[in-house]
Amino acid sequence: MTEQPVVDFWYEFSSPYSFLAAERIGPLAEARGVRLVWRPFLLGAVFKHNGLERSPNLAVPAKTRYMWRDVERRCERMGLPFRVPDAFPLNGLSASRVAVALPDEARPAFTRAVYRAAFCEGRDIAEPAVVEEALREAGVDFEPALAAAHTELVKHALRRQTDAAVAKGVFGAPTLVTPDGELFWGNDRLEEALDWALGTR
Amino acid sequence: MTEQPVVDFWYEFSSPYSFLAAERIGPLAEARGVRLVWRPFLLGAVFKHNGLERSPNLAVPAKTRYMWRDVERRCERMGLPFRVPDAFPLNGLSASRVAVALPDEARPAFTRAVYRAAFCEGRDIAEPAVVEEALREAGVDFEPALAAAHTELVKHALRRQTDAAVAKGVFGAPTLVTPDGELFWGNDRLEEALDWALGTR
Repeated sequence: MTEQPVVDFWYEFSSPYSFLAAERIGPLAEARGVRLVWRPFLLGAVFKHNGLERSPNLAVPAKTRYMWRDVERRCERMGLPFRVPDAFPLNGLSASRVAVALPDEARPAFTRAVYRAAFCEGRDIAEPAVVEEALREAGVDFEPALAAAHTELVKHALRRQTDAAVAKGVFGAPTLVTPDGELFWGNDRLEEALDWALGTR
Repeated sequence: MTEQPVVDFWYEFSSPYSFLAAERIGPLAEARGVRLVWRPFLLGAVFKHNGLERSPNLAVPAKTRYMWRDVERRCERMGLPFRVPDAFPLNGLSASRVAVALPDEARPAFTRAVYRAAFCEGRDIAEPAVVEEALREAGVDFEPALAAAHTELVKHALRRQTDAAVAKGVFGAPTLVTPDGELFWGNDRLEEALDWALGTR
């Protein structure tokens, strides 16, 4: 192949494993020469579409406890501070709209800043101040971004993106989708997905 | 530490990721000098205890499709044939009772033989002939093993083992539990769990 393979990175702002993936995926893709498209979507809407009342991770207390402990262990290995957000599950609607409104090149830095506020500092990303700070950290002029996020165009684009996730077979986050339509679910499948996209299975 | 660390390997016969773990875990533990205790349990009973009607992997068709594709990819990488069993989810009650009835040293080979019948050949492990063949492959005298499996003692031991899994916080399979009580869920966490048991986090 001479063309650079493109992999879609589907993520949800309330998903701690999407947070971990957002921290890891940039350098992994760059090292392999894979181009990423960062695609925020509303996983809660996907759960509803699939007849689930909530995340399977929150349906069973033992599983929820395990999830936080597992995420904490991953953060320790990565040298990241970790805090369970008080407001969990998080309402990532505003952050998702802003992320959709941003140009592609600004989205990764904004996304990582939102995730760190949530899972390193335990803050509520539904607060406008948290989203504004994340925009500032990403070096984005925040007033136009917030204005765009409130337009019908952007609200509709986020709904369309969520529908597209369902159409691809996405049922959880993070999910990577390769050019041939293969799905790789979870922070544990990033390397495999990127290798698959390169055809080096 | 001078003592050999002991890790509990909790598995369910209907779980394809437990099958993958059973294929991989022996050599991984041996290479690290970790002793394994193979602990079959009834995950369906744990689901019921947790208020779930069925495995979360079977509650959403997109997730079920993904699971089989993911297991197929793992089998390809491991050079194993793969078939989705017609009778899925499998009824592993008989196989679990036999596994509990066996001496510790015979359990791994029997377990792997049952899993291969299920996920490499697609056979129904509820069939007595499948369990008998697995006993033969494991080099176990099958009549006494089957007789023991039908005793109240063994039925009760399997129920107790399932209760013990719940008490440890086990909610899915496979799960490894280290001597300090840490849980590691999934075929993707085998290496990490064994390293943790060695204190080499």
